[in-house]
Amino acid sequence: MRLFLLPESYDGSPLLEIRGRDFNYLINVLRLKEGKSLMGRDRSGNLWDLVIEHVGKSSCTLSVKPADRVQERTDALPQERPLRPIVLYQCLPKGRKADDIIKKATEAGVRDIVLVRSRNCVADISAKQESRLERYDAVIEEAVQQSGSTVPTRVYGVLDIRDIPADFKGRCNGGPGLGLVLHQTRLSENQDDLVTCLSGFDGTVAIVVGPEGGLEEEECLALLAGGFRAVVLKTNILRCETASIYAIGAVQTMVESACR
Amino acid sequence: MRLFLLPESYDGSPLLEIRGRDFNYLINVLRLKEGKSLMGRDRSGNLWDLVIEHVGKSSCTLSVKPADRVQERTDALPQERPLRPIVLYQCLPKGRKADDIIKKATEAGVRDIVLVRSRNCVADISAKQESRLERYDAVIEEAVQQSGSTVPTRVYGVLDIRDIPADFKGRCNGGPGLGLVLHQTRLSENQDDLVTCLSGFDGTVAIVVGPEGGLEEEECLALLAGGFRAVVLKTNILRCETASIYAIGAVQTMVESACR
Repeated sequence: MRLFLLPESYDGSPLLEIRGRDFNYLINVLRLKEGKSLMGRDRSGNLWDLVIEHVGKSSCTLSVKPADRVQERTDALPQERPLRPIVLYQCLPKGRKADDIIKKATEAGVRDIVLVRSRNCVADISAKQESRLERYDAVIEEAVQQSGSTVPTRVYGVLDIRDIPADFKGRCNGGPGLGLVLHQTRLSENQDDLVTCLSGFDGTVAIVVGPEGGLEEEECLALLAGGFRAVVLKTNILRCETASIYAIGAVQTMVESACR
Repeated sequence: MRLFLLPESYDGSPLLEIRGRDFNYLINVLRLKEGKSLMGRDRSGNLWDLVIEHVGKSSCTLSVKPADRVQERTDALPQERPLRPIVLYQCLPKGRKADDIIKKATEAGVRDIVLVRSRNCVADISAKQESRLERYDAVIEEAVQQSGSTVPTRVYGVLDIRDIPADFKGRCNGGPGLGLVLHQTRLSENQDDLVTCLSGFDGTVAIVVGPEGGLEEEECLALLAGGFRAVVLKTNILRCETASIYAIGAVQTMVESACR
């Protein structure tokens, strides 16, 4: 474990008691002993130095102090400064695919994962939205801990595809935003090359990925009318769970390089 | 199905009888009827127009003619010319992770997937190498058919990590080659930025991805001595199954853009 994600309820106090699933994970799975130190992160992305002070039968107590960021940054994490914000608008895929997409996007440090309803979505989680989002929160928590991400990744949803442009404006907080729609076939116009689109850009980037059946041309055109740009990936036709992390890799590499 | 992968035994004749698993897939799963046409690809990457001429109880007969490439290229496949060759040197991961990595790499059109043995590999398929490679061939076949890839992806292995530089030289066929080692922490020297490395390059690119436990510094240095370049991805620490497709997305996007 690179990073222990502190509970939502953590209030900044110097001692923290851990019970339940997290206790089991630290003590029984990772077998950490009293005196062992580890890195923690709260839900806002702040880092904390943790030491296991006491281990009981069903709980343990950690001491918590603000992390020495310099040491931490050169040790556990490869990046020297925070990653640029990326928003993934993922049209709902079927079954467990969403778990895989969310896990990989969280590892890569995508800040916001917004689940989207579009015309060709077969999946419908409206009847079980709350329990499903809870499951996705658990997927994120695990991926944060594995990857040492300091990005406060969150999952949101479910948003109608027509509401993406307004939603994205809110997520840019007044800064520059670049919205990209991945489209597998060539639209008649306004088709961009990813490298050209991203050249020199270092603001917030949004990536819209369609469901298994793809996006309707009408849906794409509505996004373009809302200020998004359509890009064709120069590759084969990818399944949605491949397209998302493929595009994140391409976008993040170029954006991080642009703002060195 | 975008593309039907013809049997290894296909000899170019105008009629082809299909039995067994492929018969079941075409007739019972996809429910294709007599008269239905579809696109085919042989193991060398050539495209063929197929028509289902006759359906029997346990076999069907297809007519096979060389494909009208122009029509096909504008219809099913987004790229206008063959993808640049990519070679993935993947250190053996545990369990079913290799299936996921191979599937996604095939979709994206990686040409050669070479499984590699390195010091931190926990997985060992030496006792069952033949059956395992057969399973991976089936994974590739399915991914080719789903993605419409015209790249003749193949899996090879298992290679010792020390033999990568010589192996890669052979795969470049005398053309320009660029070998990249993904490394999660900063080596003392020779550390490159992916964008800088790839700038303007349009030859054969190799990507070396470590196993769960990462590469040893000594293994990296041996690859650098063999002409490879070490790159740090500007992201969090990724699991090996995330790192491969993330890097393929970044590399392919830049190489395809460079050689427009």
